[in-house]
Amino acid sequence: MARIGFVGLGIMGAPMSANLAKAGHQVTGYNRTPGKAGPLVSAGGRSAESLAAAVTDADVIALMLPDSSDVEAVLRGPSGVFDLAAEGSLLIDFSSINPGVARQLAVEAREHGLRMLDAPVSGGEMGAVEGVLSIMVGGDIKDFESAESIFSAVGKTVVFVGPSGSGQTVKVANQLIVAGAIELLAEAIVFLEASGADMPSALRVLGGGLAGSTVLDRKGAAMLARDYAPGFRLELHDKDLNNFMEAAQDVGVVAPLGALVSQLVRSLKARGLGHLDHSALLSLVELLSGGEKPA
Amino acid sequence: MARIGFVGLGIMGAPMSANLAKAGHQVTGYNRTPGKAGPLVSAGGRSAESLAAAVTDADVIALMLPDSSDVEAVLRGPSGVFDLAAEGSLLIDFSSINPGVARQLAVEAREHGLRMLDAPVSGGEMGAVEGVLSIMVGGDIKDFESAESIFSAVGKTVVFVGPSGSGQTVKVANQLIVAGAIELLAEAIVFLEASGADMPSALRVLGGGLAGSTVLDRKGAAMLARDYAPGFRLELHDKDLNNFMEAAQDVGVVAPLGALVSQLVRSLKARGLGHLDHSALLSLVELLSGGEKPA
Repeated sequence: MARIGFVGLGIMGAPMSANLAKAGHQVTGYNRTPGKAGPLVSAGGRSAESLAAAVTDADVIALMLPDSSDVEAVLRGPSGVFDLAAEGSLLIDFSSINPGVARQLAVEAREHGLRMLDAPVSGGEMGAVEGVLSIMVGGDIKDFESAESIFSAVGKTVVFVGPSGSGQTVKVANQLIVAGAIELLAEAIVFLEASGADMPSALRVLGGGLAGSTVLDRKGAAMLARDYAPGFRLELHDKDLNNFMEAAQDVGVVAPLGALVSQLVRSLKARGLGHLDHSALLSLVELLSGGEKPA
Repeated sequence: MARIGFVGLGIMGAPMSANLAKAGHQVTGYNRTPGKAGPLVSAGGRSAESLAAAVTDADVIALMLPDSSDVEAVLRGPSGVFDLAAEGSLLIDFSSINPGVARQLAVEAREHGLRMLDAPVSGGEMGAVEGVLSIMVGGDIKDFESAESIFSAVGKTVVFVGPSGSGQTVKVANQLIVAGAIELLAEAIVFLEASGADMPSALRVLGGGLAGSTVLDRKGAAMLARDYAPGFRLELHDKDLNNFMEAAQDVGVVAPLGALVSQLVRSLKARGLGHLDHSALLSLVELLSGGEKPA
């Protein structure tokens, strides 16, 4: 069992750190804003008053932070993890950040005598609470194998996908496909409703053929009901799509549908709707098509 | 058991008519180009020399033709089905055509004392041969119920989706989602390869989460191998997407991703690649991104 410093006890980090403690690890959690350690402490972990107190004596330092800039701020600088961590310790970044930044941070970690894996997750708050996240891991495969007891405590489908940055690369590709699938389903639903089709039957037959998808299975009924309670917020999806577009540009890949759906998600955020579930892409198709759902 | 006149014995119509004969129906098939009735005759059906010989005495007249104009040509005019068919007989159009045309033809059928269902299918040649097609049916629900023994002989998932034209409406929505899902997966694959990810692992983890889809399950491996043997040809998908765009415009629905993927499919057709499988959308992403798969 490992001594784990867990940085970032938000919606995802709090239950993940608690699951690590329940699995028998010695977990010390730190969050910049205090008062977030309840789930971890209830599970047998400890709450640290400072970043240093959480990470100085840890074998494994786990991060679960909102975006690239947050991870960079916690790692770099005179009072950052790169300076505080004991030599040879393993950093696991569960955050979803820019793949290029992840690659650069792994280089800097090595320069500080540390090992680093990028390990973004999917599966949402429910997946985090139940310890059944999908985790896409990039880095050195030996470091991946050494962390098996960590990953198995928080994830169900844990896949090593290549060198440093690859976890983030697969995560942004995942977010491209998910946003696009939601938009396609939204366009189909608005079109089918306007055409007078019987909607539950239509979605049933669509789901049974080549048009079937996990998005249709999990989001179709809520989209018919215009229930946009998150779920996964548009503003987070906007961040992920921005990371996809930057990473695609970095490797010279042109992604026409990716660019368009990014623009649609961003426009909803700009309209102040970033707090809604990403399935609210449907509301923009309705707006473009001149109105609400026909009565 | 019904006397069925089956018009259009192509890749789909030949095995469908044979399955109807095997189920005990008395099937007479007609195809404009002769020599296509082999599978039907082997299954116990008959081959007609003329359209009139196939449809005049039929209780049910089934059509499986390439596009709207073919269906219109067979139905209308002095020697067409509308004039030849016995009063009260049931027309079932299995073709994939423009939803607005389907609605109009159903009106004309009624004016000729006939009943008509639009019943486009999905599942491809293999689904037709095995009698396990998905069928989306629009029209009068009583006519749908009266044709149960017909549909069950050729389809597995048979769903009534609303008034006349609704079957075609759902079919074009299906084709929108499928084309978009292929393009999204293509963009993801080209991006992931260019970024150095381990591809089989990446597709496995994508398939296990919210990005999972039937397209990924059935087409992912062939797309990694650049195997574009059809399957479903781009030129047919182009026709279906054109029908989607026209139908969406008819009801005032704006479909940004639909419009873009239609354009991409059409450009491949214009490059003379219409005979390839629709997964060849990937080759256009590669072209836009400056080359073939990195060695």
